[in-house]
Amino acid sequence: MTPTITAFERSPDGGKGLARDMRVRWALEEVGLAYDVRLLSFEAMKEPAHLALHPFGQIPTFEEGDLALFESGAIVFHIAERHAGLLPDDANARARAITWMFAALSTIEPPIIDLAFAKLLERDEAWYEQRLPLVEERVRRRLSELSLRLGDAEWLDGPFSAGDLMMVSVLLRLKASGLLDQYPNLSAYVARGEARPAYKRAFEAQLAVFSAASRT
Amino acid sequence: MTPTITAFERSPDGGKGLARDMRVRWALEEVGLAYDVRLLSFEAMKEPAHLALHPFGQIPTFEEGDLALFESGAIVFHIAERHAGLLPDDANARARAITWMFAALSTIEPPIIDLAFAKLLERDEAWYEQRLPLVEERVRRRLSELSLRLGDAEWLDGPFSAGDLMMVSVLLRLKASGLLDQYPNLSAYVARGEARPAYKRAFEAQLAVFSAASRT
Repeated sequence: MTPTITAFERSPDGGKGLARDMRVRWALEEVGLAYDVRLLSFEAMKEPAHLALHPFGQIPTFEEGDLALFESGAIVFHIAERHAGLLPDDANARARAITWMFAALSTIEPPIIDLAFAKLLERDEAWYEQRLPLVEERVRRRLSELSLRLGDAEWLDGPFSAGDLMMVSVLLRLKASGLLDQYPNLSAYVARGEARPAYKRAFEAQLAVFSAASRT
Repeated sequence: MTPTITAFERSPDGGKGLARDMRVRWALEEVGLAYDVRLLSFEAMKEPAHLALHPFGQIPTFEEGDLALFESGAIVFHIAERHAGLLPDDANARARAITWMFAALSTIEPPIIDLAFAKLLERDEAWYEQRLPLVEERVRRRLSELSLRLGDAEWLDGPFSAGDLMMVSVLLRLKASGLLDQYPNLSAYVARGEARPAYKRAFEAQLAVFSAASRT
């Protein structure tokens, strides 16, 4: 049964692969699962039909037979649990990989989103310039800790896992900020993620959507 | 094998049960699993011994034999996966319960933490009063969506699950703000969580730590 995911009809990032459908596409490519995509306008995302699937009116969602899920973390986990390639077989290693998924979404991503929100939504506010260093410092603190833990390892805990997929996806949001450049091992880690064939296929697929939308 | 978790030696919330060890205690109580607690000072949390367990220098951690985990979401999931009581047996219902865990941590908690950070860390900043409504509005938007989805149901999706445990835990952080009062169904939902015997046992256990520390 081919699952269907939802994605932006016209991604606000201009096809940079930062929208959250990218994480799901990447996971599906890693495990070699074909999928369909239903594109949504910003208006359609707030309509009852989509809110029934996603209570917070966002993308992505994931539909497979009579199962409907939202939250990229939950969808990636669902894929990883049912198909080989994203979670180790060993029970302890598997629990640690899942820990890194939660760490990416719950510890690393929130300050990164704050920084994005500040730049996107508070740029014209009186406090913007004054507050920005504080927001950046919160990101830097997490990056320092993560950099220390990664050291010169290739991935966070043994072979590439759904934890790395999620962490790389979250760190990619920082690319334009330059903050990542201050941590060479994290930059190299992100580059290793981007170099994976599955990542590249997923990236091309989301870019094709944006390119097609731009031509209309 | 009795697991050991870590918690604050002296919780910054004054025993209100808002520290993240509470979620793990609650999960352990729900499944009826005994546990040991190792208390940490703020200094000890930043020392190499603890950083080896928790790269971000926080609590809680979870140790069981040769397994060591961090991130309250990952720990609660680990407990829920191995013991009956927190995840439904049906595969689809289980995936949806896990979705609510991610939604609590990744969609609902971040704006709530932002509000807490603003109140705690930015109260003396020039922009505090002016920016606060914007931060509160981000919380309210998520609460409205969540309230709409919950409707008059008892729990988010069928019987009480790890998804509800996490969502109630996250919403409890709003109690003092008064924001929750504007959503009677969410307030009642949180109250149902607090009324569970397992919640009460966990709450008493963390309060006992704080009370003992206050007497020294």
